[in-house]
Amino acid sequence: KQSHTFYSGKQIFCKARKYEAIRWMMMFAIGVTVGLVGSLFAFIGAPPAVEKCSDKGCLPLSLLELLAFNMTFIFIASVLVLIEPVAAGSGIPEIKSYLNGVKIPGIVRLRTFLCKAAGVLFSVAGGLFVGKEGPMIHSGAIVGAGLPQFESITFKRIKFDFPYFRSDRDKRDFVSAGAAAGVAAAFGAPIGGMLFSLEEGSSFWNQALTWKVLFCSMSATFTLNFFRSGINFSKWGSFQLPGLLNFGEFKCPDGDTNCHLWTAVDLAFFVLMGVVGGLLGALFNCMNRKLAKYRIRHIHPKAKFIRVLESLLVSMVTTVVIFAASILLGECRDLSSPTTHNTTLSGSEDINSTIRRFFCTNKTYNDMATLFFNPQEAAIHQLFHQDGTFSPMTLSVFFLLYFLLACWTYGVSVPSGLFVPSLLCGAAFGRLVSNILKVKLGMDIYSGTFALIGAAAFLGGVVRMTISLTVILIESTNEITYGLPIMITLMVAKWTGDFFNKGIYDIHIQLRGVPLLEWETEIEMDKLTASDIMEPNLTYVYPHTRVQSLVSILRTTVYHAFPVVTENRQNEQDFMKGNILVSNNIHFKKSSVMSRAGEQRRRCQSMKSYPSSELRNVCDEQNAAVEPAEEGEDLLQQMLERRYAPYPNLYPDQSPSEEWTMEERFRPLTFHGLILRSQLVNLLIRGVCYAENQSSATQPRLSYAEMTEDYPRYPDIHDLDLTLLNPRMIVDVTPYMNSCPYTVSPNTRISQVFNLFRTMGLRHLPVVNAVGEIVGIITRHNLTQEFLVAKLRQHYITI
Amino acid sequence: KQSHTFYSGKQIFCKARKYEAIRWMMMFAIGVTVGLVGSLFAFIGAPPAVEKCSDKGCLPLSLLELLAFNMTFIFIASVLVLIEPVAAGSGIPEIKSYLNGVKIPGIVRLRTFLCKAAGVLFSVAGGLFVGKEGPMIHSGAIVGAGLPQFESITFKRIKFDFPYFRSDRDKRDFVSAGAAAGVAAAFGAPIGGMLFSLEEGSSFWNQALTWKVLFCSMSATFTLNFFRSGINFSKWGSFQLPGLLNFGEFKCPDGDTNCHLWTAVDLAFFVLMGVVGGLLGALFNCMNRKLAKYRIRHIHPKAKFIRVLESLLVSMVTTVVIFAASILLGECRDLSSPTTHNTTLSGSEDINSTIRRFFCTNKTYNDMATLFFNPQEAAIHQLFHQDGTFSPMTLSVFFLLYFLLACWTYGVSVPSGLFVPSLLCGAAFGRLVSNILKVKLGMDIYSGTFALIGAAAFLGGVVRMTISLTVILIESTNEITYGLPIMITLMVAKWTGDFFNKGIYDIHIQLRGVPLLEWETEIEMDKLTASDIMEPNLTYVYPHTRVQSLVSILRTTVYHAFPVVTENRQNEQDFMKGNILVSNNIHFKKSSVMSRAGEQRRRCQSMKSYPSSELRNVCDEQNAAVEPAEEGEDLLQQMLERRYAPYPNLYPDQSPSEEWTMEERFRPLTFHGLILRSQLVNLLIRGVCYAENQSSATQPRLSYAEMTEDYPRYPDIHDLDLTLLNPRMIVDVTPYMNSCPYTVSPNTRISQVFNLFRTMGLRHLPVVNAVGEIVGIITRHNLTQEFLVAKLRQHYITI
Repeated sequence: KQSHTFYSGKQIFCKARKYEAIRWMMMFAIGVTVGLVGSLFAFIGAPPAVEKCSDKGCLPLSLLELLAFNMTFIFIASVLVLIEPVAAGSGIPEIKSYLNGVKIPGIVRLRTFLCKAAGVLFSVAGGLFVGKEGPMIHSGAIVGAGLPQFESITFKRIKFDFPYFRSDRDKRDFVSAGAAAGVAAAFGAPIGGMLFSLEEGSSFWNQALTWKVLFCSMSATFTLNFFRSGINFSKWGSFQLPGLLNFGEFKCPDGDTNCHLWTAVDLAFFVLMGVVGGLLGALFNCMNRKLAKYRIRHIHPKAKFIRVLESLLVSMVTTVVIFAASILLGECRDLSSPTTHNTTLSGSEDINSTIRRFFCTNKTYNDMATLFFNPQEAAIHQLFHQDGTFSPMTLSVFFLLYFLLACWTYGVSVPSGLFVPSLLCGAAFGRLVSNILKVKLGMDIYSGTFALIGAAAFLGGVVRMTISLTVILIESTNEITYGLPIMITLMVAKWTGDFFNKGIYDIHIQLRGVPLLEWETEIEMDKLTASDIMEPNLTYVYPHTRVQSLVSILRTTVYHAFPVVTENRQNEQDFMKGNILVSNNIHFKKSSVMSRAGEQRRRCQSMKSYPSSELRNVCDEQNAAVEPAEEGEDLLQQMLERRYAPYPNLYPDQSPSEEWTMEERFRPLTFHGLILRSQLVNLLIRGVCYAENQSSATQPRLSYAEMTEDYPRYPDIHDLDLTLLNPRMIVDVTPYMNSCPYTVSPNTRISQVFNLFRTMGLRHLPVVNAVGEIVGIITRHNLTQEFLVAKLRQHYITI
Repeated sequence: KQSHTFYSGKQIFCKARKYEAIRWMMMFAIGVTVGLVGSLFAFIGAPPAVEKCSDKGCLPLSLLELLAFNMTFIFIASVLVLIEPVAAGSGIPEIKSYLNGVKIPGIVRLRTFLCKAAGVLFSVAGGLFVGKEGPMIHSGAIVGAGLPQFESITFKRIKFDFPYFRSDRDKRDFVSAGAAAGVAAAFGAPIGGMLFSLEEGSSFWNQALTWKVLFCSMSATFTLNFFRSGINFSKWGSFQLPGLLNFGEFKCPDGDTNCHLWTAVDLAFFVLMGVVGGLLGALFNCMNRKLAKYRIRHIHPKAKFIRVLESLLVSMVTTVVIFAASILLGECRDLSSPTTHNTTLSGSEDINSTIRRFFCTNKTYNDMATLFFNPQEAAIHQLFHQDGTFSPMTLSVFFLLYFLLACWTYGVSVPSGLFVPSLLCGAAFGRLVSNILKVKLGMDIYSGTFALIGAAAFLGGVVRMTISLTVILIESTNEITYGLPIMITLMVAKWTGDFFNKGIYDIHIQLRGVPLLEWETEIEMDKLTASDIMEPNLTYVYPHTRVQSLVSILRTTVYHAFPVVTENRQNEQDFMKGNILVSNNIHFKKSSVMSRAGEQRRRCQSMKSYPSSELRNVCDEQNAAVEPAEEGEDLLQQMLERRYAPYPNLYPDQSPSEEWTMEERFRPLTFHGLILRSQLVNLLIRGVCYAENQSSATQPRLSYAEMTEDYPRYPDIHDLDLTLLNPRMIVDVTPYMNSCPYTVSPNTRISQVFNLFRTMGLRHLPVVNAVGEIVGIITRHNLTQEFLVAKLRQHYITI
């Protein structure tokens, strides 16, 4: 009986029950798929070290061989990124933006996935200082976005009849689950993955979704675990290798009762390391930011092959530098040095197997080459668990070179993660600290812990993540007792770094000009109210609007949503005579406004049919009140009689004229709902409208499935063939509009507006005054830090 | 210049900055305090086993000795609960209700804390089947609530000048941090603690708060760890005992390469165990529910000492049963049985040290007594790590007796947790399964894993927690590889159990009649809209109201908040003549309604003073529009001239009369804001009002500190001395009301209403129609499951 059934229709209920089961299955499917992708990623190795020739004669040849190998790989990776430019980088800024609610074209497409996955394979194998964990997370997110759609734009053939999850909200849920699964597979950290998606997804705490996300993460971790254990050890069915990256087992040697992983005294050093890590991270970010700005200004505008050349240059320099450093600065150390903490790598691989001789004579090995010519994961293991292997000189040089090259590399157009390079760089720093403390000051410490804390400090200083990073690192070490040191280090590193600049991901997001919403506004912003930041110039539609007006509005504006309003003039009655459009509007308004008396009357009537004598008495009493004639019906009657009157060209067709006074231009508008651009275009394309001499009930009705069929790429207004439309027809948008969006009053504080917007994942928030008139609209743009700061400055000036 | 400065005043900004630092310190203080409390709890042991006499002659004497000992302890525990009845039980239902937003008197008071802490000490030491983890969580929550207040109601002397955190919201944040710290200390699970507070606190995902809560949890875990490691091993500064409860180390013997903690095949058994655990949990809950209902009907109404007698009865039966079972059904087994998985308890205590001989001859021990006459933690360790010790018969008997006795015990009026008893009971079940699989079917499994999964299944079946329980158990085992099995088991157990009834905590919350809000509404509820469930009979106040009206409203109703409204009659003008009250109301309304034209004009004016020539041009153009005279000011002028006119007794003083028609009774009311009962009472007590022949500007102003001084116990309206008030004075509530609360439109879907209410932690949600009239109000009561189901049934009938 009500017309607002589009959003609350019965079909949604029925589907939603089925959805729940399908959702769990989808979560499992996403988890397993991400786990499989992770298993493929696990095969990525580093370039083989040049060990075969041991006399100095073949040295240039080895270098050339290595260069040819690396640069070929990097060339391939770079070309893949040319095919799909958003496949460059780690993908975490993109995922962060997406989960924050900003759509960046192409980031969750199958083509991106293929380029990214293949690209990272080559860029890691090509010896660049890049990690595969970031791309793993991005890949997970794409799997999450794509799998439940059962169709692909890249490959048109992939298209099943699976009409579920055709909404941004569902898709975002799956993307966050996929990203969580990516983290889970990358670090063997399912809880960390769940928290990552919470921290970045930042919707309200949705118990049911979080539970599903955890399940998805678990599935990913254990799928990866299953396949890696099976392939590496041929022990199918056991679970021994939790993530792509794990930190091995930190433990004291069995006999040593005086050994502690860390003590209360060490905490003081950890705090200091946190400060240094924060400073180093801030420096890294600052340098990388300058570099990125330079790239945007000087490299991106030029021909695309310039980017490939840059990648090749980076690859060449990296290869030459690590080769030269190993030869010139590496120390040949005794292989039989006391390796007391000689723990095993996940219980299988001996850590000594990843030692590199690199032109050193028998029984000795090159410590620099051990760090440079290994997969980064193995190098991290070396720093965490190999005792007494590295000289302070080697560690310092390694740290410095790695810091500079990693900083240069992040931003080159190849798929490149930043987690593992940061960890390795930080681990070298931590190991350096432990060497100094142990050898110079003679302290009794566990050097692996210091390497771990160094890694955490530097990584924390660079990325500035909080809860999820803490949990990821705790899970990666599989040692709950490291919780406190890791958390304190990360806290201090973040606070120190935040003093200077933002995290690396936020910097890149900002450089791209994405209107990201922060966690919360600053307290100072509460000096502003909703009316200070809203956009008061509205483009609106009426409940019943002519096709020609709609087309002109849609073609001349770029807004994604339009408020549906009725005019609220004092002299409204004057316009009514013989004008069905206006009368429709007024009738709509009369019937849509609920009054307390009307509601009470309705309740009494419904209660009478309710089988309780007690209730009935209450009602009869109230019902004795006289019911006045309903004005609305009168009006309708009046209008229906005048149906065939000539249609005067009145204001619903008029666009705001330049000659109008401000009072005219900003005349009061009663707010009734919001309608999306995509919905309006859809209505026009499907010819949902009625002739002006007919009732709006004759307008064809679209089902939910018809409205969402084209998701996620709705047709554009410019694709519309105007000749098929009669411009004088009228569209009744009321069955399709969202008639009860969240609204705020004009004097609401910014923090409250921000909370509502962020928590409920809104895109448009109408500002409605105390008498129901819309006075403005708030979009994401009005809530960005830049806009708020500008408004606040203006506020101070005008006071 | 605006009058709505009470909530957005400058003092709040300045304080909030200082708050941030104090908050971190408070979180640390709460964490450390909870850790210290946990350290005290750690000293609680079980009653000493009777081992001294080994011939059968002294048997009755031993039993009597044990009985006397146990019943004395239980008597003390029971008396402590008589002093403060909310100290009974585990406290988790109370904390859950509190975090859900329901205030239960006394649950976060210092007296409760003392009774609970001392009581649980005696009830655990008295040999009842109760745990100390629940009370630990409750204690943590009380510390969180009390510490930041720096004053106590129990001890009036404790009162410092610390005027921070005087709001429900701040207090709730600290309570959730304290509860998280309690979990962290109880299980050594800081991440689990954080997730527990998220899962139960269920506000929106507040990044900053969550980060602080994690810090608080970490502090608690490591304080406890520090003190326990120091006291138990005299190794101050090391961290070796993470929580009150930990599950020891699950690991395969070093040499055995074929041993796996679990394999993919085992997962199938875990699913089955999850089903059984869910069934057993549902049975437990069902029985306990019947028992609780019986207690409410037959025991609670009687004299209080009856409850003490019940406690003593439970204690007696428990003691006799475990004594008899150990003597009659326990098997004397060989001490030198192959204990292959003879792992160490946190690397220090040998597991064999907790074996009980109990009248068995030399070199043998009693397996039943080993389970019964040990602290429950030690018994869990036995089941998890001791291999080949327990016969299937013993395990079955133990499980059955424990199940029944634990079910009887939970609800007796002593402080009593449920976690550890459930874990122990479930571990026996799991061990039984593993014995059967291993011995009867000859499967190669790790029995400790099965015991763990059994424990998880039963606990999951009883409490039905999801994310937090998964993480707590993973952290307690300190073994990330158990993630998947634990999660799957808990999921299956929850789904199975939910088929029959709710979790035990929800059952007890329901029995107490607490209007708890669920996570989300069922999809079916979306057939209802806000107008279906709202309360349309409003008790409201005007912006300017006489003292006598306010007193009568406050004394005759129990509402916690009142909408502030102005009447919206067509014939408003008729009432204006000579009546300053009405004129005030109208003037208020006129000036408070923001129009788009007015806003645009304001912006243009402010932009002119903004130093940008470009902007100025835009403005000048628009400003050329004619500004009409403001009606509002005219009205005010009119009214001011009539200030001394006699005051007619018009409707602001009138209470709704019985003779009114429905139209009159439910006349349109324009909504302006919400004011709390406590604020109104405060205004009256402090004499904030003005005489009717004066302007409202003469009314004294209260600061934020004055308004919140009496937090958390605001004075009651009945404490008000009426003789001090002039009933004809007028109170202007506009500076103190919340002028922009969240509102919804009448046809908003229930799920959306529910989301907003739950996420934003609302208590009152006004329902406002399209023209700004309030048509009803939604409170927590209108959103409870019972109310919604009733409304839905009514909806189906009336269709």
